[in-house]
Parts: sequence; C-alpha cells; structure tokens
Amino acid sequence: MTKIITIGREFGSGGREIGNLLAKELGIAYYDNEIITEIAKRTRFDEGYVQHVMENGPVTMGAMTHGRTFYMGMDPVFEQNNVIYREQSRLVQELAEKSDCVIVGRSADYILRDKDPLRLFIYAEMPHKMERCRKRAPEQENFTDRELKRHIQDVDRRRGRYYQFFTGQTWGDKLNYDLCINTSRASVEEIVTAIAKLAK
Amino acid sequence: MTKIITIGREFGSGGREIGNLLAKELGIAYYDNEIITEIAKRTRFDEGYVQHVMENGPVTMGAMTHGRTFYMGMDPVFEQNNVIYREQSRLVQELAEKSDCVIVGRSADYILRDKDPLRLFIYAEMPHKMERCRKRAPEQENFTDRELKRHIQDVDRRRGRYYQFFTGQTWGDKLNYDLCINTSRASVEEIVTAIAKLAK
Repeated sequence: MTKIITIGREFGSGGREIGNLLAKELGIAYYDNEIITEIAKRTRFDEGYVQHVMENGPVTMGAMTHGRTFYMGMDPVFEQNNVIYREQSRLVQELAEKSDCVIVGRSADYILRDKDPLRLFIYAEMPHKMERCRKRAPEQENFTDRELKRHIQDVDRRRGRYYQFFTGQTWGDKLNYDLCINTSRASVEEIVTAIAKLAK
Repeated sequence: MTKIITIGREFGSGGREIGNLLAKELGIAYYDNEIITEIAKRTRFDEGYVQHVMENGPVTMGAMTHGRTFYMGMDPVFEQNNVIYREQSRLVQELAEKSDCVIVGRSADYILRDKDPLRLFIYAEMPHKMERCRKRAPEQENFTDRELKRHIQDVDRRRGRYYQFFTGQTWGDKLNYDLCINTSRASVEEIVTAIAKLAK
C-alpha cells in the first residue's frame, strides 16, 4: 500500500518540522518548498513570482472576477496564475505517483483525494505559535508581540484563502482531515512517533 | 506523571469504543456511564433523571435565566440541576485524583484543565456515523436514513449545548483539544495504538 501523507499547517505551529521528521522516521520522500522551485523551473517563471502567486493568487483572482467584467483568456496575470495552478496539481500528482512521500501545504490533501492520503492538519494556540516564531525566525525578532500576532494571522488568512479558492473547502475544518494535531503541549518528537504508528 | 485522557466525541463516531480500548491498552481506569450512576447515587436522584438533566439541562436553564425574572434559589428545577452539575464536577475531579484514567464526555477536558489531561475529540463524516449507528444500535434499525441523520444531529446539538453551557467554550472546536481524530477511514485499533504511543 502506498503511503502518502499530506500536511496542512498553521504558521508557527511546527507543521514543517513534523513533516520533515515524519518523512525521516518512515524513510520516505519529503516535499515542501522544493515544489515551488520545480514549478518555477517548469513554467520558467521566477521562483519569487511563483511563491507570490501561490501565496496571494486568489486575491488577484477575486478582484478580477468579482470587480469588473472579465474576458476569459484576455488577462495575462490570470493566465499566468492558471498556468501555475495547473502545474502545481500536475507536479503534486507526479510526486505522489513516484514514491511514498510527505507533502507539506500545496492543497495536496485535495489534489490527491483519489489516492486516499493520510491527511494531517497541524495547529497550535497563538502564544505557542508566537514563541515558536521568535525562536525560529530571527528576521521577526524586532516585531512587537502585536506585530508578530498580526503577521501570523495574515499568513494564515492567505493560506486559508488560497486553499478555499483552490479546493472550495474550508482550510482547517477538521472534516477535511484525518487527524488534527495541537502542538501547544506535546513535543514534536512524541507527535511524530505517534503519527508514524498510525501511518505504518 | 499522571495520565488523564479525556474524550469528547460525536455521536456514532466510535469515541466510546476508542476510550474503552485505550484504557485497556494503557492499563488504566475507564469511566463513561458509571459517572451518571454514581451521581444518581450521591444526589439520590433517579438515574434516568440525572441522565436527562445532563443531556438537556441547559435548555431549561436558558429558558429560565433569559425568559423571565429569576429569583436565585426559588426554582426547584434549577436547584436540582445545579446539584447535579456540582456533583459532576466533584466526581470527575475525584476520579482523576484517584488514578490514571480515560473519561468519556462529561466536559472532563474542562473540569480537569488544571491537570493538563490529553484531550481527544473523536469525530467522523456523517455517512460513516450512520453506518456505525446501524451496526451498533438495533433500536435504531427501523429509522429511515433521514430519521437517523436527524437523530445523530440532535444528540450532537444537545452535547454541544451542554458543553457550551458548562464550559463557555465551543464543543468540537479544535483549539480545545490536543488531538482531533476522524474515524471515517482508519480502524479503531490503529487509532488506539497511535494514541497509546502519544500517551505513554
């Protein structure tokens, strides 16, 4: 049986770390930002641009489809976004075909729904996410608590919007996942051991 | 370190079965309906009445405190409900003091919040819950699908209302739990093994 694990995660919750350790524990492939790099290569767009579209795409889309009359295929930005979305779907499917793997983000739970992946959602209480961000991201060390909190909320709002746009589902709604894990109290290592047990 | 595990669960999701097996796997006590029996004994109310209050209490309360002027201590129903709530809190705390245990329902996650329990919430997709109900509860075998679905929704609505009344929190909101487990796809045995790993 193939083992495909998808991870949705709140910013600062430790989802990426869990994904990475879990892949190591299970001896399977791990994909996260590699996907953006590969999409950039395939579409020949700049990597920063791909990342921007994957984080902000739906905003532009909303403005375009709701704000004014829109002629299909006439808007180059819309077309570029679509190219990137299509490539994302294709790539995530290719990766899952190639071998067992852990895929972080990218709406992979939805893209791979026919493959019956183990769908995880990692989340945490706000103070825990703030503490984690302060430890991991020195570039945010000058943020006040208020700024940091707003930053975390912003990133998650964009993730939610992207997921909703791409899948038509609500990001973080527990019915879209098999297991939702609060990292506020347990250690990442304990969590990984338990999930590995479920995935083996 | 003490091991206290609390389980919130949607009706028909298999939460009780998971709790029972988990307690066996960990070799610790398991409490579910025993709590109602014991409260009845202590308060000298009929067991059916205790169960009714614990399932419907908040409705009466809402009607009384919002619907008309209310004089503290004057309403015997309100007083009886309060006796039962207080006894529930006391008993759940006593049980957790006595030994490691798994407690199903009873807002135990909230009552025991100072003991840092492992807080689980067990849920599932509606078709899965319906199938499970049909298998487990012969008394519902004459329900149409529509009736069964409504029955499941009713029970959960009452559980949600009770929890909200008792704790001021939203029932099933993942931030109130450490682990939310969707039983629609994995087997109960696999789930129990994984949680035991996390709890050990």
